[in-house]
Amino acid sequence: MEIRTAVVAWRAQADALVILDQRALPAREVHLVLRSAVEVADAIKVLAVRGAPLIGAAAAYGLWLGARVAADHPDRLDDAVEEARRVLAASRPTAVNLFHALDAGMAAWRAAVGDPATRVAALRRAADDLARADAVACERMARLGGALLPDEGGVLTHCNAGALATCGVGTALGVIRGALALGKKLRVFADETRPLLQGARLTAWELLRDGVDVTLLPDGAAASLLRSGAVGAVVVGADRIARNGDVANKVGTYPLALAAHAHGVPFYVAAPTTTLDAATPDGSGIVIEERAAAEVETLGGTRVAAEGVRVFNPAFDVTPARLVTAIITDAGVARPPGENTLQALWGR
Amino acid sequence: MEIRTAVVAWRAQADALVILDQRALPAREVHLVLRSAVEVADAIKVLAVRGAPLIGAAAAYGLWLGARVAADHPDRLDDAVEEARRVLAASRPTAVNLFHALDAGMAAWRAAVGDPATRVAALRRAADDLARADAVACERMARLGGALLPDEGGVLTHCNAGALATCGVGTALGVIRGALALGKKLRVFADETRPLLQGARLTAWELLRDGVDVTLLPDGAAASLLRSGAVGAVVVGADRIARNGDVANKVGTYPLALAAHAHGVPFYVAAPTTTLDAATPDGSGIVIEERAAAEVETLGGTRVAAEGVRVFNPAFDVTPARLVTAIITDAGVARPPGENTLQALWGR
Repeated sequence: MEIRTAVVAWRAQADALVILDQRALPAREVHLVLRSAVEVADAIKVLAVRGAPLIGAAAAYGLWLGARVAADHPDRLDDAVEEARRVLAASRPTAVNLFHALDAGMAAWRAAVGDPATRVAALRRAADDLARADAVACERMARLGGALLPDEGGVLTHCNAGALATCGVGTALGVIRGALALGKKLRVFADETRPLLQGARLTAWELLRDGVDVTLLPDGAAASLLRSGAVGAVVVGADRIARNGDVANKVGTYPLALAAHAHGVPFYVAAPTTTLDAATPDGSGIVIEERAAAEVETLGGTRVAAEGVRVFNPAFDVTPARLVTAIITDAGVARPPGENTLQALWGR
Repeated sequence: MEIRTAVVAWRAQADALVILDQRALPAREVHLVLRSAVEVADAIKVLAVRGAPLIGAAAAYGLWLGARVAADHPDRLDDAVEEARRVLAASRPTAVNLFHALDAGMAAWRAAVGDPATRVAALRRAADDLARADAVACERMARLGGALLPDEGGVLTHCNAGALATCGVGTALGVIRGALALGKKLRVFADETRPLLQGARLTAWELLRDGVDVTLLPDGAAASLLRSGAVGAVVVGADRIARNGDVANKVGTYPLALAAHAHGVPFYVAAPTTTLDAATPDGSGIVIEERAAAEVETLGGTRVAAEGVRVFNPAFDVTPARLVTAIITDAGVARPPGENTLQALWGR
């Protein structure tokens, strides 16, 4: 059974990281050639590249680029890498994969010996390894999670946790791809996901490209859809999972979990073990990034909100573990999610 | 205690109904002069005029205009009024006030005797009476509901149930205005309300115009806000209330009620008794209007969804009575809402 996608979100060249600029989708396929750590950090900040696992990989390549541009000045090399780490770490606070990736890159940097070119090459290898590991993790989640989904009917997802958010077939969308590869007859419902419309712009585009039947809905219509019986499972990704299984994911995930719970629909979270944050006991300790008011006040460049209004625009919310049926990771399925079941996977 | 608003959504002239075109808000204040039943029906259909109570009043004026333009042809007058009724009844299926208003107008028409001008004037009087009654109903709800809100803190609302949706100070926003008139120190949180953004475009504009502190949020952020403790009550309007207290209102109301319930926040519905639909035993019998896919696929004229995606775009959802703390009507408060408590108010 092969699990594939036609979507290519990024590629690493000899001197740059090339990414598909997700802000231009679905209208145009624009590629950005990133040649420095600052350019990578900016691309993360403005959401040209997004999705917790892909942010992690991009940051690892960012470290490499930070070292690469300083390779002609051996005495400044360590400072350049440290500066790259600092800039990249400040790009998005909630995605824990970012910090794991930077830690892995820094460990490779410290371990690397030899001339500048060799040490820079070690950073590149670390980034390649991390990207490859994420692709493998996606495929494992796709196999484990694909088996959990119903044999037919509707599956609901939120935001974009697909090939555009990872280095492989995706987390939540990977699980759906895994189920389809098993021959399951599924149709996908995608929340449009305000304010940035990742569902409308990215998930619909990504699934249509692979020939998957996808229906878009406003976030507020998901609860009615769940009541209608048209949805047999909800699958979402995660940006950070606390030790007790509380899940930080795109804002709008928590009300979806409440509605799924109210209607007895299984609620699955798919995330690589790199998303697990052992240092945070529960969801209350997760820092939630607040984004610019303009994301809510304007649409397609046109102001839609009255002048002078205040805005509350958190990027993420926290779904308590008790509303999550299972967390699907590359190391296995935590069901129900909790400190014990997650710890068991982690140890592997 | 006076409860007022500076917002004027409509006025009846000697030969026309003039409405504030709500599609142009908040950028511009454009007025439409409607001179026929078809023009009124179109204005309702395209949401230039909206809100269940205001739709009812507009339809009553539409009947009058339908008769007025045919007044020179006495033999065709009855047909013209019947045709006006048919066209107006087809404009929006979910708002029950529309049908109540048309029934009231038709009763006045059948009861009117005399020459065409006299009979046409009777229809105008029926519309004026209905509009005045709605303004009075709003004020009663504002007094009854204003007393129920907390003395200070946040109040969350969805869509627009204000002066832009009624002939008076509004239903849900009327209740908030009533509380403010009592000296309560409230700030309002307004869901932006996808897909048509009535919260961003209308509620924020309307409340800012009256100097009320208002904060806008994406619909998906409301559950987190409720968990944060910043909201002491939720107040929404209704488009139709079934005999058992199930409430049809703008899509996104039901998940809000689920989140309020999960966090022990009172969930109030404010609606005039004309919104009660005795003929429908419970919410399962309420027809939910599905609107055009374009509302979800495009934003400000720009396509945001991938070509070829399907769309699920219900205009309303149904909140079960058990999630509603109380229904505030002009005849009193049904608490908890149910067949008995609603019936008691209705009888008055």
